[in-house]
Amino acid sequence: MSGEFDIIAKYFAPLATDEGAFGLTDDAAFIAPFIATKDVLVEGVHFRSNDPLDLVAKKALRVNLSDLAAKGAKPAGYLLGCVWPMGVKEEAIADFARGLGEDQELFRVSLLGGDTTVHGLKGAPLTISVTMFGAPSSGGVTRRNGAQAGDDVYVTGTIGDAGLGLRALTGVIKPAAGAKKLFADRYRLPAPRLAAGGALAGLASSAIDVSDGLLADAAHIAETSGVAIDIAAEKIPISSAARVWLDAQTNRNAAIADLAGMGDDYEILFTAPQSRRRSIEMAGQVTKTPIIRIGTVLRGKGVRLLSENARPIDAPKRGWDHFGR
Amino acid sequence: MSGEFDIIAKYFAPLATDEGAFGLTDDAAFIAPFIATKDVLVEGVHFRSNDPLDLVAKKALRVNLSDLAAKGAKPAGYLLGCVWPMGVKEEAIADFARGLGEDQELFRVSLLGGDTTVHGLKGAPLTISVTMFGAPSSGGVTRRNGAQAGDDVYVTGTIGDAGLGLRALTGVIKPAAGAKKLFADRYRLPAPRLAAGGALAGLASSAIDVSDGLLADAAHIAETSGVAIDIAAEKIPISSAARVWLDAQTNRNAAIADLAGMGDDYEILFTAPQSRRRSIEMAGQVTKTPIIRIGTVLRGKGVRLLSENARPIDAPKRGWDHFGR
Repeated sequence: MSGEFDIIAKYFAPLATDEGAFGLTDDAAFIAPFIATKDVLVEGVHFRSNDPLDLVAKKALRVNLSDLAAKGAKPAGYLLGCVWPMGVKEEAIADFARGLGEDQELFRVSLLGGDTTVHGLKGAPLTISVTMFGAPSSGGVTRRNGAQAGDDVYVTGTIGDAGLGLRALTGVIKPAAGAKKLFADRYRLPAPRLAAGGALAGLASSAIDVSDGLLADAAHIAETSGVAIDIAAEKIPISSAARVWLDAQTNRNAAIADLAGMGDDYEILFTAPQSRRRSIEMAGQVTKTPIIRIGTVLRGKGVRLLSENARPIDAPKRGWDHFGR
Repeated sequence: MSGEFDIIAKYFAPLATDEGAFGLTDDAAFIAPFIATKDVLVEGVHFRSNDPLDLVAKKALRVNLSDLAAKGAKPAGYLLGCVWPMGVKEEAIADFARGLGEDQELFRVSLLGGDTTVHGLKGAPLTISVTMFGAPSSGGVTRRNGAQAGDDVYVTGTIGDAGLGLRALTGVIKPAAGAKKLFADRYRLPAPRLAAGGALAGLASSAIDVSDGLLADAAHIAETSGVAIDIAAEKIPISSAARVWLDAQTNRNAAIADLAGMGDDYEILFTAPQSRRRSIEMAGQVTKTPIIRIGTVLRGKGVRLLSENARPIDAPKRGWDHFGR
């Protein structure tokens, strides 16, 4: 069986005959004057069976809002498809709807329609499909394919907290209570970088939201743009809670590569010409968003994670691939 | 547990704060200048586990195209979300993609994007979510809420074949081979009434595609429009193959009510002022679509199925309600 991205390239990209589909190489489709994005969340894959349903609802909205954020678009509304487990209780649906309502107010979006059904097979998992629409910024839509050799590489926020959250929730790691809560919150409830994404439209040469993992998503930019990307391991922004975990690992480089492969960060990874360093700094300042320069775009192909002495770090885990696992 | 439509009215309609969502009382949302529709298909609910995957793919597109047809819109493109069973074989995905490709050519639509993943739980069913976009006709969008007392009620094509197809495929009925194929084809591969829907835009006062069942969908129009609908049982168009089944039933009225409750017909049920009878006839003629007048819109509420002597027929089964089953 081929991997997820091979499957998409082989079977689905040929079906994307409309120019606005960008050959399925982007997070969203352009449907003038709206852009649309669709992400599906499945119990047991994207969230855990005992995650609170109001948070699951918010995550379903926010992973799509994060796609819009990377494209610099302003959220407008969404279509919702839900497939509930057999025998679902009304209280569960009420919790879910409450979560949607709270986030609708926060992000000023409206449910536009959709489809609700119940599984016909016992034990089949809750499945949530959200199609989110947004209005492009006046700065344009930030694509994945615009990175140029010589550009800087940046990322917002911090990397690895959500991945550590999943490990803490599943008992793989046992951080202190405060760190565990911080990590778990990051995993369950991503904060889409809408303000920063909007400010970066017209400044960034390419952008993607970090969902598969920093290195995997850098590889998406590199491949779509036809360039190589070098990332300096020590520059990757890490929260103080994650730094406690990092400092306890025996192989520091492997541990940074691990953090950069975890996924679920929902930060924005982007590139921009060196001439825009001051503008990027201002965009971070006015939107109160930490933005850190972590690498460089080069001619060639592939993504390298470099140690302090500029040696490539072996990073076998390159993020999520649902088919390849 | 409340029924599906109660659940939608109670929990999700309050979230449809955008005018273009029509309060979730319609098949599609209006996102100027595009309209969008979303239907989810689940293995074991909307198709059978041994249905050929190219046909499942086509059905997933066509049930959404049918929503656009009822609204009079011209299809443009779609977003696709797939959740595959664990251990899915690549051949299965290839079959599925081939079905999509064939129907894309037929209906001139493009895949625009989406999301593909694999279940994390063993035995979890294939789940397909399609969001379809269309351009409204110059005649406008045919809503559900425009039926007026005095209007005629019409339906395209024939009713009940798909429902008999499901029963034939599951061995509940045993029709002759020719009839079984006809029924099974209608169940597996609906033919969206796009030409007729486009021609009816600006003529019909309300429309819906028949997916839940003729009576259930008539009830959707009646409720949203604030009117009552009477349907003459003997006028409901029935294929000659279905007539063979009908003639073999002991209680003819109950059997017609049964056909009118089965669902999956994907015909267009619509209303229009009596003054437009000639225009409706012409719309059927130019689009080569059988259109039959089957009833009347009245003041009041509810849907009645009337026998030849104008007595209401008891019709307990009012179509699909995924929560209420």
